[in-house]
Amino acid sequence: MKERQLNDDELQNLINEVEPYANKGEVAEYIPALARANKTDVAAAVYTVDGRVFQGGTYGHTFTLQSISKVLSLALVLDERGEEEVFSNVGMEPSGDPYYSISKLEFSNPTKPYNPMINAGALAITDLLPGRSKERKLANFIDYVRQLAGNNRIEYNKNVADSEFQTSFLNRSLLYYMKQFGVIGGKVEDIIDLYTKQCAVEIDCLQLARIGAVFSLNGKDPEKGTQLISERTASICKTFMVTCGMYNASGEFAIKVGVPAKSGVSGGIMAVVPNRFGIGIYGPALDDRGNSIAGWKLLQKMNERYAFSIF
Amino acid sequence: MKERQLNDDELQNLINEVEPYANKGEVAEYIPALARANKTDVAAAVYTVDGRVFQGGTYGHTFTLQSISKVLSLALVLDERGEEEVFSNVGMEPSGDPYYSISKLEFSNPTKPYNPMINAGALAITDLLPGRSKERKLANFIDYVRQLAGNNRIEYNKNVADSEFQTSFLNRSLLYYMKQFGVIGGKVEDIIDLYTKQCAVEIDCLQLARIGAVFSLNGKDPEKGTQLISERTASICKTFMVTCGMYNASGEFAIKVGVPAKSGVSGGIMAVVPNRFGIGIYGPALDDRGNSIAGWKLLQKMNERYAFSIF
Amino acid sequence: MKERQLNDDELQNLINEVEPYANKGEVAEYIPALARANKTDVAAAVYTVDGRVFQGGTYGHTFTLQSISKVLSLALVLDERGEEEVFSNVGMEPSGDPYYSISKLEFSNPTKPYNPMINAGALAITDLLPGRSKERKLANFIDYVRQLAGNNRIEYNKNVADSEFQTSFLNRSLLYYMKQFGVIGGKVEDIIDLYTKQCAVEIDCLQLARIGAVFSLNGKDPEKGTQLISERTASICKTFMVTCGMYNASGEFAIKVGVPAKSGVSGGIMAVVPNRFGIGIYGPALDDRGNSIAGWKLLQKMNERYAFSIF
Amino acid sequence: MKERQLNDDELQNLINEVEPYANKGEVAEYIPALARANKTDVAAAVYTVDGRVFQGGTYGHTFTLQSISKVLSLALVLDERGEEEVFSNVGMEPSGDPYYSISKLEFSNPTKPYNPMINAGALAITDLLPGRSKERKLANFIDYVRQLAGNNRIEYNKNVADSEFQTSFLNRSLLYYMKQFGVIGGKVEDIIDLYTKQCAVEIDCLQLARIGAVFSLNGKDPEKGTQLISERTASICKTFMVTCGMYNASGEFAIKVGVPAKSGVSGGIMAVVPNRFGIGIYGPALDDRGNSIAGWKLLQKMNERYAFSIF
Repeated sequence: MKERQLNDDELQNLINEVEPYANKGEVAEYIPALARANKTDVAAAVYTVDGRVFQGGTYGHTFTLQSISKVLSLALVLDERGEEEVFSNVGMEPSGDPYYSISKLEFSNPTKPYNPMINAGALAITDLLPGRSKERKLANFIDYVRQLAGNNRIEYNKNVADSEFQTSFLNRSLLYYMKQFGVIGGKVEDIIDLYTKQCAVEIDCLQLARIGAVFSLNGKDPEKGTQLISERTASICKTFMVTCGMYNASGEFAIKVGVPAKSGVSGGIMAVVPNRFGIGIYGPALDDRGNSIAGWKLLQKMNERYAFSIF
Repeated sequence: MKERQLNDDELQNLINEVEPYANKGEVAEYIPALARANKTDVAAAVYTVDGRVFQGGTYGHTFTLQSISKVLSLALVLDERGEEEVFSNVGMEPSGDPYYSISKLEFSNPTKPYNPMINAGALAITDLLPGRSKERKLANFIDYVRQLAGNNRIEYNKNVADSEFQTSFLNRSLLYYMKQFGVIGGKVEDIIDLYTKQCAVEIDCLQLARIGAVFSLNGKDPEKGTQLISERTASICKTFMVTCGMYNASGEFAIKVGVPAKSGVSGGIMAVVPNRFGIGIYGPALDDRGNSIAGWKLLQKMNERYAFSIF
Repeated sequence: MKERQLNDDELQNLINEVEPYANKGEVAEYIPALARANKTDVAAAVYTVDGRVFQGGTYGHTFTLQSISKVLSLALVLDERGEEEVFSNVGMEPSGDPYYSISKLEFSNPTKPYNPMINAGALAITDLLPGRSKERKLANFIDYVRQLAGNNRIEYNKNVADSEFQTSFLNRSLLYYMKQFGVIGGKVEDIIDLYTKQCAVEIDCLQLARIGAVFSLNGKDPEKGTQLISERTASICKTFMVTCGMYNASGEFAIKVGVPAKSGVSGGIMAVVPNRFGIGIYGPALDDRGNSIAGWKLLQKMNERYAFSIF
Repeated sequence: MKERQLNDDELQNLINEVEPYANKGEVAEYIPALARANKTDVAAAVYTVDGRVFQGGTYGHTFTLQSISKVLSLALVLDERGEEEVFSNVGMEPSGDPYYSISKLEFSNPTKPYNPMINAGALAITDLLPGRSKERKLANFIDYVRQLAGNNRIEYNKNVADSEFQTSFLNRSLLYYMKQFGVIGGKVEDIIDLYTKQCAVEIDCLQLARIGAVFSLNGKDPEKGTQLISERTASICKTFMVTCGMYNASGEFAIKVGVPAKSGVSGGIMAVVPNRFGIGIYGPALDDRGNSIAGWKLLQKMNERYAFSIF
């Protein structure tokens, strides 16, 4: 098994190789709380399916899930509501457009977000979170993340959530557009409130790697063996991570790395190596399509070393 | 002078000819208050530059300005703020798209509504109405309409405004999109509040014809001779009425009728025959592009009779 | 009459004022034959409806019609085939897009060019030119231009036509797209051959001004008084010149100058001041939307002096 | 191993289950030669990596590769020219648009087809086929297919190629658009000639299954063990088959079936179950996105039975 060779030193060496790339990227500026990130940070953790853990770089810091939360809310909603209801509201096709794009909504008939990984689709999924109130929905989502990450103290960062809530104009635009055509049922301000908090859930690389490991194990808790996500839902989520998990660079990532992965503008990436391990990465310097520039490079190098592409 | 032949009977005859078309159209359904209109109503008034008045059809009823208000807010804002400021926020080009379209905003760089007659542009103009508060801005707008229409009791219809305020999801989507890119400065809910009230100003055909006469006279009050709108602003407004006043049928209207005109989904049309007369029409049955179906036909027949195309 | 003040000296003075703008523009590079034009040339001619003629600048040179030919082929086809046939193939709406755009074709249903002034529409009109063969169609078109310009020696420039024929890839793309959806009936290579020759017809400012005078007189020959273009067709052409004659700056031109006009990438502009005069301009330095930069400025200054806006 | 259960009878049973779906689809009408296909035909073959073969349905008939050829020309060109050259001309992202779409080309800057599975991208790949003449390029392509399919008599169908050549207006439109922006170097008519012949290569289900088996084996010939396609190229091709192999239903197919697959409008589908088997399907009745309706269902049922999704 190639994983035998994987250890803290190996991981650190690979991180050392990719650290210089961070200088070529830019920290997300449009959310004030994210703009304060340390651009040169690069950290990674690996959580193997048999429970071993490796870490390297500037690990230990927390960061917010941002778009990584899209795949977790999707998993929760799929298990709660079933494929039929979910896919009557949101499509399954990659769009080729930036995550914030609204034109495809206008050109689609009936109006339907292309997939749950672009903002329009993710907002429609958030609208479907289980719970009678937005407080209840948020609590359910955070509980879910805690279970997946194996940590009961995970919380959302109030400052980041507030900051995004104040400036989420594009997301409100998408929501009102969908409201007009009946794609969402809830109130726009409630969904924005919930979505910004969902995106602001704080996590560290190791916790993220553990969530990745759950997906690696087709939904099973790597410690207890319990089924946290149904097999079918885990499979669907991995599919979306491949076809549209890395923004409008997903196709390129599939070719160059080839594992299910989801990134966020905070600089986080969760990658899933089926039946082997989950990976959590943090590197806030982003490339021009919104992915952690060093994180992408690190995954490419790991794939060269450990040959984990599913293709 | 051909106007010599214009009188109440002539106008009534033409209205009789076009009344049957009303059955082929549909009353706007998306605003509950508009859906209650009497589909077969057709009314028209002509106000000549020398102050004579002709009326025919089911005149006397009031209706709301809806999109016709776009040209009045534009006139007010142009005279208050000047061309430079206005056109740094809103473009001058017809778009060929439906009035509610958002894609062109996404494809334009920098983000800028194509013109002040589509909803995006009209909302940006409303944001520029003079006044320190939304109440003051509304009062200024209503005062302005009163002066143009020569009637001090003009008011907005609270029911229609409320009804639209509840359902203006697309306009909120446009506003948040523009907010993201700095096209508007005010608060979205304030602008929506103001815009729905501006659209809900109630008027009758004769008052609308009188406003048309003001534009016919390059901005002069047809009774007092005072300059209500500057000549330059009146000229700009007439230009926009020709290039984009009749939704995405403006090009066809220019070819088939050929005078500056602005329509609204309430079924109103204001037409301007330069130096001759203004026309106010009400016919709530709309064609598939949102123009009064009988109103359009009436203007075509009037042009055949009175040869008023400017082309 | 303000025209009394118009004379060669006045025109020369205005040209002197706008000449410096030529340095801010660029000569069209994509057609090799056009790229050799003298960037600082500015010339203009005025042809009044009573037959007087004024000229200024570097007049006397010939240039090719390019897109100005679109309005002449439209006139010929409208008079030969009637509105119904023409407008079943081509629309009447300004599009807001660049003249070479293909997306609007894809988004329209059924497939139909928005108007006859964008390339797609102009190519569909060329397909309808009267004549049994492409040679006959071309001869008919050139005869028509000769009549309008009052000069029997007008010919097309073979070098320019050849040069464009070799490089008309975008126009072929538009034609094949329309061929797929039945918008055109003829062979693509025949239409390209014909269209490039139509665009390459050579003319000078004075001839162009005379054609403008024909439109000023609603289709009448300014010397003989014969009806060269039917009144209705002349009116339709003037309408299109206002709504879409100056590429995707037509709206702005209508506001800033306000007369029917058509420009070409050779740097020519034909402007029509109804019932007063036609204007022919040549200034090959173009602005970023394809209009003669000095020509546009000259028309703005002439409008300030002679107040000829129709709005 | 689940494949133990796979045999001719099992396959026939599954085909029997999906045959009724053929009545809900439609045979491609736009290519006359395809319109004559027998709508109710359903055939399938499986070629295991250890050389066993199973067949069912109306097998034995040949059909043309159509879009399935896109993945074979890509493989050949990637191995001949390398990733760098190929991806400087063609992108790696799924587009979400129909395969014939041209708008994305207009909106991309620089102009570049989104991926090699839509027509624009496939045509650009055909332009890169190795060989000094179009005859040589075609010969090389056919040789390549023969090797992959293990049959030296494979040829293209001249009638189908001629029929498509006459009617390939959209593809010519795409090619001229790309020619304008330097995406292709060859002559449009040469590329069309080559592309229509490439699409018209005739094959049967078993041959197609064998090609699938080559991809299953990461490029190895299942009989001789020689490397027909490099591992890297086979991996890239499988990735594109997942992200964009089933037209604009690729995302849905990935979720519902989950293996690399490529379909064609002839009704063929090649599917690849990594390290297990290749599948060749023929069912000319298509769904509204251009995929064999019974073929899709058959793959869904096979996945339920043999659990071959890679996700």
